[in-house]
Amino acid sequence: MAESMKGMHRSHRCAEVTEREIGAKVTLMGWVQKSRNKGGIIFVDLRDRTGVMQLIFENGSIDGEGFEKAGKLRSEFVIAVTGTVERRSGAVNENLATGTMEVRVEYLRILAEAETPPFPIEENSKTKEEIRLKYRYLDLRRPDIQRNLMMRSQVAMLTRQFMAREGFLEIETPMLGKSTPEGARDYLVPSRVHPGSFYALPQSPQLFKQLLMCSGYDRYIQIARCFRDEDLRADRQPEFTQIDMELSFVDAEDVMDVNERLLAYLFREVLAVDVPLPIQRMSWQEAMDRFGSDKPDLRFGMELVNVSEVVKGCEFAVFKNALELKDGSVRGINAKRQGGMPRKKIDKLVEFAKGYGAKGLAYAAIQEDGTLKSSFAKFMKEEEMTALVTAMDGQPGDLLLFAADRNKIVWNVLGALRLELAGEMGLLNKNEYRFVWITEFPLLEWSDEENRFMAMHHPFTMPMEEDWDKIDTDPGSVRAKAYDIVLNGTELGGGSVRIHQNDIQEKMFEVLGFTKEQAWEQFSFLLSAFKYGVPPHAGLAYGLDRLVMLMAQEDSIRDVIAFPKVKDASCLMTQAPAPVDGKQLEELAIAVCSREE
Amino acid sequence: MAESMKGMHRSHRCAEVTEREIGAKVTLMGWVQKSRNKGGIIFVDLRDRTGVMQLIFENGSIDGEGFEKAGKLRSEFVIAVTGTVERRSGAVNENLATGTMEVRVEYLRILAEAETPPFPIEENSKTKEEIRLKYRYLDLRRPDIQRNLMMRSQVAMLTRQFMAREGFLEIETPMLGKSTPEGARDYLVPSRVHPGSFYALPQSPQLFKQLLMCSGYDRYIQIARCFRDEDLRADRQPEFTQIDMELSFVDAEDVMDVNERLLAYLFREVLAVDVPLPIQRMSWQEAMDRFGSDKPDLRFGMELVNVSEVVKGCEFAVFKNALELKDGSVRGINAKRQGGMPRKKIDKLVEFAKGYGAKGLAYAAIQEDGTLKSSFAKFMKEEEMTALVTAMDGQPGDLLLFAADRNKIVWNVLGALRLELAGEMGLLNKNEYRFVWITEFPLLEWSDEENRFMAMHHPFTMPMEEDWDKIDTDPGSVRAKAYDIVLNGTELGGGSVRIHQNDIQEKMFEVLGFTKEQAWEQFSFLLSAFKYGVPPHAGLAYGLDRLVMLMAQEDSIRDVIAFPKVKDASCLMTQAPAPVDGKQLEELAIAVCSREE
Repeated sequence: MAESMKGMHRSHRCAEVTEREIGAKVTLMGWVQKSRNKGGIIFVDLRDRTGVMQLIFENGSIDGEGFEKAGKLRSEFVIAVTGTVERRSGAVNENLATGTMEVRVEYLRILAEAETPPFPIEENSKTKEEIRLKYRYLDLRRPDIQRNLMMRSQVAMLTRQFMAREGFLEIETPMLGKSTPEGARDYLVPSRVHPGSFYALPQSPQLFKQLLMCSGYDRYIQIARCFRDEDLRADRQPEFTQIDMELSFVDAEDVMDVNERLLAYLFREVLAVDVPLPIQRMSWQEAMDRFGSDKPDLRFGMELVNVSEVVKGCEFAVFKNALELKDGSVRGINAKRQGGMPRKKIDKLVEFAKGYGAKGLAYAAIQEDGTLKSSFAKFMKEEEMTALVTAMDGQPGDLLLFAADRNKIVWNVLGALRLELAGEMGLLNKNEYRFVWITEFPLLEWSDEENRFMAMHHPFTMPMEEDWDKIDTDPGSVRAKAYDIVLNGTELGGGSVRIHQNDIQEKMFEVLGFTKEQAWEQFSFLLSAFKYGVPPHAGLAYGLDRLVMLMAQEDSIRDVIAFPKVKDASCLMTQAPAPVDGKQLEELAIAVCSREE
Repeated sequence: MAESMKGMHRSHRCAEVTEREIGAKVTLMGWVQKSRNKGGIIFVDLRDRTGVMQLIFENGSIDGEGFEKAGKLRSEFVIAVTGTVERRSGAVNENLATGTMEVRVEYLRILAEAETPPFPIEENSKTKEEIRLKYRYLDLRRPDIQRNLMMRSQVAMLTRQFMAREGFLEIETPMLGKSTPEGARDYLVPSRVHPGSFYALPQSPQLFKQLLMCSGYDRYIQIARCFRDEDLRADRQPEFTQIDMELSFVDAEDVMDVNERLLAYLFREVLAVDVPLPIQRMSWQEAMDRFGSDKPDLRFGMELVNVSEVVKGCEFAVFKNALELKDGSVRGINAKRQGGMPRKKIDKLVEFAKGYGAKGLAYAAIQEDGTLKSSFAKFMKEEEMTALVTAMDGQPGDLLLFAADRNKIVWNVLGALRLELAGEMGLLNKNEYRFVWITEFPLLEWSDEENRFMAMHHPFTMPMEEDWDKIDTDPGSVRAKAYDIVLNGTELGGGSVRIHQNDIQEKMFEVLGFTKEQAWEQFSFLLSAFKYGVPPHAGLAYGLDRLVMLMAQEDSIRDVIAFPKVKDASCLMTQAPAPVDGKQLEELAIAVCSREE
C-alpha cells in the first residue's frame, strides 16, 4: 500500500509556502494532522517540521481514484501531494503562518499508512510523560518539542559560529578515559583487551582542556557529552551536554567578557531578547547576604535583611541562641502584601523551611491597622518589635519571616523561601531574563565529614592574590578567581582561573591535606604537563540542556533532549539498560554478582 | 619564579603581526622555541599556535634586569613580552610568515619555566610514536599536529555551517544505549541502578537517526562519537567520529547531490582544491571489474582485464581450473614499463598476492625485443600467448600479471596488487584528489559461515525496484540503493536509501532468515515506530578522522586525533584503561573474573 515518491520532488516545506506562491503549483510531503469530509470536500491538515498547510480534495480538481484515496486518509498517514496554492475560501486561521492559504490537490500519493497512535500528536500534550517517553518517536512529532529541538540545534550552531569568530578551536577529547576517585561517581567501561581494567566516561573534559592549553591551542571549545552516575533529580540526566571552553593568556575578566557577548548574541538571535552588557557582577558574599543564594533570582526583590544587630539584646531564645553560634545570625524577608495569609498557609511555609534545615520560622503579620499577629512578639519588648518592623521596612499588610541559625542554614532557608513565595505571588516572569555573574567565591569549604578543607570548585582554582597571605592563618576567608553565570535563579555555567604556578599549587595540595605522592597519583599527567611550560589559563562550562530549557521556557530538561532518560536512568523507549549475553560478559572477564557479596 | 600577567594584555598572536605593524608596539605571549646569544644580542624564537616571531633582546632596549632574565630563557619557557616591531636586520626567513620582521623587546615576564622536554618540539618529529604519545601534551605542541587539529576544527565547523544552510538540524542522540547482537562488538557500561543490566555505547546513531525521520525532523546531522570494541588496525580507533546524516522525502540522488556539494565546499575552503561536480558515479560491478575494488583509486590506470574468453581453450591447468569454478575467471593487469623487474621482486609480488588469497600469480614480462619471460608460457600455444598479450595491450617493456580463481579472490588479489605496484611506481600523488561514488552494491552477500544471505549494508537497505522481482529466484543478483563515496582508494563514507515499506521489510527479514519474532526482538522500537507513518528516507555517514587524515595528507588517523589510543586500545598518556577501586565494582554489582571460568 506504501507508494514510492519516484518522479515526485518536494518543492516546499509546508510553512515555506508564502502568499507569493498563490496560483503556483507546489509539491508538499508530510503527515496528516487531521482530515475531515465537509459537504463532499475533504479537508486535510498536512504537517511537517515547519508547520501545517491545509489541503483540499474536491472531486474534479483531483480524479476519482485520487479522491477516493483521499477519503481513506487518517491521522499520521504520510502523503505526497501536488496542487495549486489558493487563497483560503473558508475562514482564515490566524494561528497559522499559512492560515490565509490552502492547496487544492491535483495528485496524491500515500507514502505510508499509519496505525492510530497511542496518544494524539498535539501541542501541550496532556498524556502522561511515561507513555510519551515510551513512544518518544511519536512524542517527538509534537510541534512544541520540535520547536525545542530546532532551537537547541540553533543555539549549538550559533555558539560554534560565535566562538570560531573569537578564535576558538573545537577539539574533541576522549570518551574512554580513566577513572578518578574525586568528584561524582563514574560510569565504567570494562576493557576486553585488558581484563580487570576499566575505562571511565568523562564527567567533564576538565583535565584534557587544561592539557590543550599546555599544548598551546590557546582557545578551546567543545560541545561535549558528559556523564555522572548519580541519583537523578528532576533536572539531571546521566548523560548531559556541556558547552566547554578554556582560554590561555587571560584573566577572569576576559572569560566573562567573551561569554557575556556570547549570551547576548544567542538571546538576540534566537529570542530577539536584548541582554544589556556588561552583565552585573556580584560577589558571592553579597549574593548570600542579599538573596541567600549563590544563584540569585534578580527578577524580584524580597531581599534578605540581617537583623542580628536589631535583635541582639532580646530575650527570645531562638534569636538569642542563634546569635551565640559561631557564624550565627537572624535574618528576615518581607513578603509584601502577604500579611493576610491564613495561618494554615503560614504553617506550610514553616514546614517548607524545615525541609531546608531550619528548626522553625518566626513570623510577624502586620495587620492593616498596624497591629501584629506574630509567633514570637510575646517574647519581645514592644520597642524591640517596633525596631524590627522598621528594620524590615514593614508596612501594614506585610508578612515578615525570620530565620535564626548558623548563616549557612539561614541563607539556605530564606533563599528557598524567597523563591517559593515569589512563585506563589506570581513574581516569576518567564519573559524576563536577568543575568548576573557571581564572583569571589570562597576558595575552600570546610567539610565536617572529612574534617578538612575541600576545594569549592576544584584543586586547580586560582586564589585571589589579595587573600593569598591568609592561606595559613585563615584559609576559609581566602577567595577564589571563580565565577558563575546565573540566569533567573539558575546556574547556567561556571568556571575559574586555574593555578599555573608550582608553588601555589603545592600549597593548595597541602591545605587540602594531600601529600605530594597523593597529588601526583591523582593528577599525574596534568602535573607532569605543568612542568614543561604552562601558560596562565582559565575556562568555563555551561550546561547546554539547562540553557536551552530556560530559553525555551520549559520546566524540564527532558523537553529539550531528543531521547532522555527517566529518574532511574533508564530509557523507556529502548529499555536500556538491559541484560546482555553471557558471552559478552565472558569476553570482558566480568561477572554479575549480588551486591551483598 | 612564575610571574603573573597582571596588567599585560596580549595584542596579537605571533603570526597575526603583519608588516603594517612595523614601528608599533605589540605584546606577545607564547613559548620559547629556541634562544641563542650572538654577539651580546639574545635572539629568541617565540612560538604560539599561529607561528613563530623572532624576538631580540639587547641591553639598552631592555633594562639590565630584563636582559639578565632573557639570558635565562630556555626552550618551552612561557613568556610575555612587549616591544616594537621592526624590519629584520639580519637575513629574512622565507619559511616564516613573519620572516621579514622581528620584535625588539622592551619588557619581559617569565610566566612559567620549563624543564627540558623529553624530545624536541619540532615538525616531522623523528621521535618514536610511543614516546610522543606518552607525552602527548608536548607532542601536541608540534606545528604539524597543530595544523592538523586546526584543520579538523575547521572541517567540522564548515560542515555544520553548510549543512545548516541546507536545512539540517543537529540533534544529539544517546551515548548510553542498548546492546544489539548484530554488528561489531559493543562497549558495555554496567548499570548501578539496575544490577545485572548494561548500557552499550553506540556503534553508530543508525536507529536513532531513522527514528528522527519517523518523528518528522526531515534533515538530521550529527558529528557523533561512535565506539567499536574490535581489534585495532592501523587506521582504526576504539572511539571515532562520524559525520552522520539522514534525510526524509529523498532518493539516492538527493543524498549524493548534497554531499558532493559539501565535499566540494570543504575542499575549496580548506585546501583551495577544486572538486569538479558532479562526482563520477560507478556501479559496484564496474568498480570490481575495472579495479578489483569497491573503493577504487582512480589516480592511475592499470585496470584489470578479464581474459577468461581469451584463455578459455588453453591447457594451462591454473587457468583451466579457475574457469571451471562457479564465478571463476582469469584476469590480468599490465604494469607498464615494469618488464625489467628482477625475478626476486616478482617473487615478492607472488608472495604479496598469496597474502590476499591467491594460490599463485602468473606473469609474463615482455622483453624489449618482444620475447616473453613468463611463468606459464610453456603451457600455452604461441598463438594463445599472442592473443593474451594483445588482449592486455602488452608492449615491449611491460609486465603482465594474472590471477585465476573465483572472481572474489581474483578481484581482491589484483586490486591489492594494482595499489602495491602503483606505490612502487610512484603513481600515487597526494596532491591529486579523485572522488568517485560507488553505487548499485549487491543487496545481499552469501555467508559460507552462516550458510545464509547476510545484508551487505544493513537489513533496512532498500533494494533497487528493477531487481526486486528476483528476490526469490536469484537473491544474490538483487542490487541495493546503497552508495559509498571514495577518495583516492579510501572509503570516506557510505549510506543507503532505507526501506520504509512494510511488505519489503518483511520479505527482507525472510530472506535474511529472521523469523518475525526475531526481527521484532532485535529492532522492536524501530519496527514499532514504522507502524505509525514512516517517510521515505535515506542517509549517509562519513568517517571524520579519515576525511581529515586525507585532507591533511597524513598516513595515520592518530595524527588528526588529539588524544588517540594505540593498538591495544590503551592511552599511553593517561594509562586508561586501569584497574579501579573494589568499592566501585561492588556498587555496580560486578566482579572481575578470569576469562577461563
